[in-house]
Amino acid sequence: PSISDDFQDDGEVAAAKAIYMVSDGTGWTAEHSVNAALGQFEHCLVDRGCPVNTHLFSGVEDVERLMEIVKQAAKEGALVLYTLVDPSMAKSAEQACKLWGVPSTDILRPTTEAIAAHLGVAPSGIPRGAPGRKAPLTEEYFQRIEAIDFTIKQDDGAQPRNLNRAHIVLVGVSRTGKTPLSIYLAQKGYKVANIPIVMGVELPKALFEINQEKVFGLTINPVVLLSIRKARAKSLGLDGEMRSNYSEMDYVREELEYANKIFVQNPVWPVIEVTGKAIEETAAVVVRICHDRKQKCLMPRISKRY
Amino acid sequence: PSISDDFQDDGEVAAAKAIYMVSDGTGWTAEHSVNAALGQFEHCLVDRGCPVNTHLFSGVEDVERLMEIVKQAAKEGALVLYTLVDPSMAKSAEQACKLWGVPSTDILRPTTEAIAAHLGVAPSGIPRGAPGRKAPLTEEYFQRIEAIDFTIKQDDGAQPRNLNRAHIVLVGVSRTGKTPLSIYLAQKGYKVANIPIVMGVELPKALFEINQEKVFGLTINPVVLLSIRKARAKSLGLDGEMRSNYSEMDYVREELEYANKIFVQNPVWPVIEVTGKAIEETAAVVVRICHDRKQKCLMPRISKRY
Ligand SMILES: Nc1ncnc2c1ncn2[C@@H]1O[C@H](COP(=O)(O)O)[C@@H](O)[C@H]1O
Ligand SMILES: Nc1ncnc2c1ncn2[C@@H]1O[C@H](COP(=O)(O)O)[C@@H](O)[C@H]1O
Ligand SMILES: [Mg+2]
Ligand SMILES: [Mg+2]
Repeated sequence: PSISDDFQDDGEVAAAKAIYMVSDGTGWTAEHSVNAALGQFEHCLVDRGCPVNTHLFSGVEDVERLMEIVKQAAKEGALVLYTLVDPSMAKSAEQACKLWGVPSTDILRPTTEAIAAHLGVAPSGIPRGAPGRKAPLTEEYFQRIEAIDFTIKQDDGAQPRNLNRAHIVLVGVSRTGKTPLSIYLAQKGYKVANIPIVMGVELPKALFEINQEKVFGLTINPVVLLSIRKARAKSLGLDGEMRSNYSEMDYVREELEYANKIFVQNPVWPVIEVTGKAIEETAAVVVRICHDRKQKCLMPRISKRY
Repeated sequence: PSISDDFQDDGEVAAAKAIYMVSDGTGWTAEHSVNAALGQFEHCLVDRGCPVNTHLFSGVEDVERLMEIVKQAAKEGALVLYTLVDPSMAKSAEQACKLWGVPSTDILRPTTEAIAAHLGVAPSGIPRGAPGRKAPLTEEYFQRIEAIDFTIKQDDGAQPRNLNRAHIVLVGVSRTGKTPLSIYLAQKGYKVANIPIVMGVELPKALFEINQEKVFGLTINPVVLLSIRKARAKSLGLDGEMRSNYSEMDYVREELEYANKIFVQNPVWPVIEVTGKAIEETAAVVVRICHDRKQKCLMPRISKRY
């Protein structure tokens, strides 16, 4: 999807189908789910055979606003996907959609109901933003913030003396996605450091002194890396000279071989191939390996306690 | 939830109910949905009246692994929540769970089916990690990475000369959550800069020269801020002297008043109260205001094109 791309339906996109996402909270759960589900329709989205516009309505806490949105959905011929935990709001959404012929689905209800039955406890029915409900300053909150602060400070090889405090250390040549991957993992509470591999620059000693099970190598197909670097050089406005060194095929290949030699010398480091993987896909692999190593249990899995 | 907290069921948590999350992809969609749904059971989770352990199984692409997981779920008395797009895998999960008496729900199916009906197109049935399926290097991918790189560089008032290139500029006293909020927004593709308000330190001139509609003030309840700062000072290991200045009630109040004066002088800046809000809740407010301002349409909403 194109980000922060605001528009009203106009001639050009008249054929686009609209999906409304309505939440009494932030709407991020609906957005995440719809995004994943739309992955199942890439074959027609990509070539614009069936363009889709999504519209996110967050903080919908009263029935008046809800009715306005459903009416607008009816006008636009939109599908309405909602997460509304107050039973009377959910009921209103369902009934209004039925009345105005708007297709609709409660995204989270099956999950909530399955959990309720499993726990033998009824859901509160209280939305996250409800008056009086405050997100508590849990240990997790502080952990996450500390992880983000740490990870920002350790970006791009900074302050190797702190490497021992990292949960995860990522190593790879420029533009293998170390920074976005670090940040993604930091959001999940991991303290991450990333260290660039640059030909002719020695890796910090500290890297080899910490627990080697924390270190992960990233590698990538040279042709893909070249295209990423070309895009990068363009956006940085590098001039011809700089550019050619950084983004010429021979140089890229040589640098990746140099990195691979380092990886061979450090066989404890898992080497992850990032070609064609989205950031969150690589993150899933890293987190899985991390937990498997710590856990050594019968079944690889990532566990949390609520 | 406690993060990266691996454990096997033992005596202490014997009463905890297990939730298995199974995905042919990363599992992040299931995790996000379950996390939101568990918000509906906070009244019993918090005081450990009904502790819950979640276990995430990602990259489950073959039926053998799936069967192992379902068998283990049966042993543990777990609920199985899954996202499996291959119809035969989904069917296998459903049948195996039924056979072994394991409660189960397909988290994403209702959403995917609603979209399929709306678009008049069948879902591909191909999981995101399937061989041959590669995440494309879309414009969105590069935007997101650029936003993250930018946001890291602009943390904590760095390089004010770049402020004009930001989409969003956050202003507030220390520990109002500017950094984690910036990073959260960067992940969504926004270039964010954050600038600390410190008594006796002048704000950068550039802040007042850029488009004022991009600037957001953050404010917080002084008692809550004090408790956050105390936790922070402890984790930083600040000594008594530094600590008292930074985390004494009078100082905190004075600093917040100082910030509020600045906000009053700049009435175009929306001032967001972050007390009791999770990062993603504040992010939802910021993004909504941003889009409303740019859009000026009949209905406030955040739109994307797929
Ligand atoms: N901590 C929470 N407490 C109660 N409800 C929540 C919580 N987190 C999310 N929800 C609900 O889950 C749905 C999705 O949340 P959101 O992702 O904020 O749109 C909304 O209906 C929220 O009200
Ligand atoms: N881009 C995509 N293409 C196809 N399927 C996807 C895509 N993204 C997510 N999915 C599917 O949506 C479900 C949730 O994804 P995940 O969050 O990776 O577990 C899984 O069944 C994935 O296979
Ligand atoms: Mg980097
Ligand atoms: Mg900060």
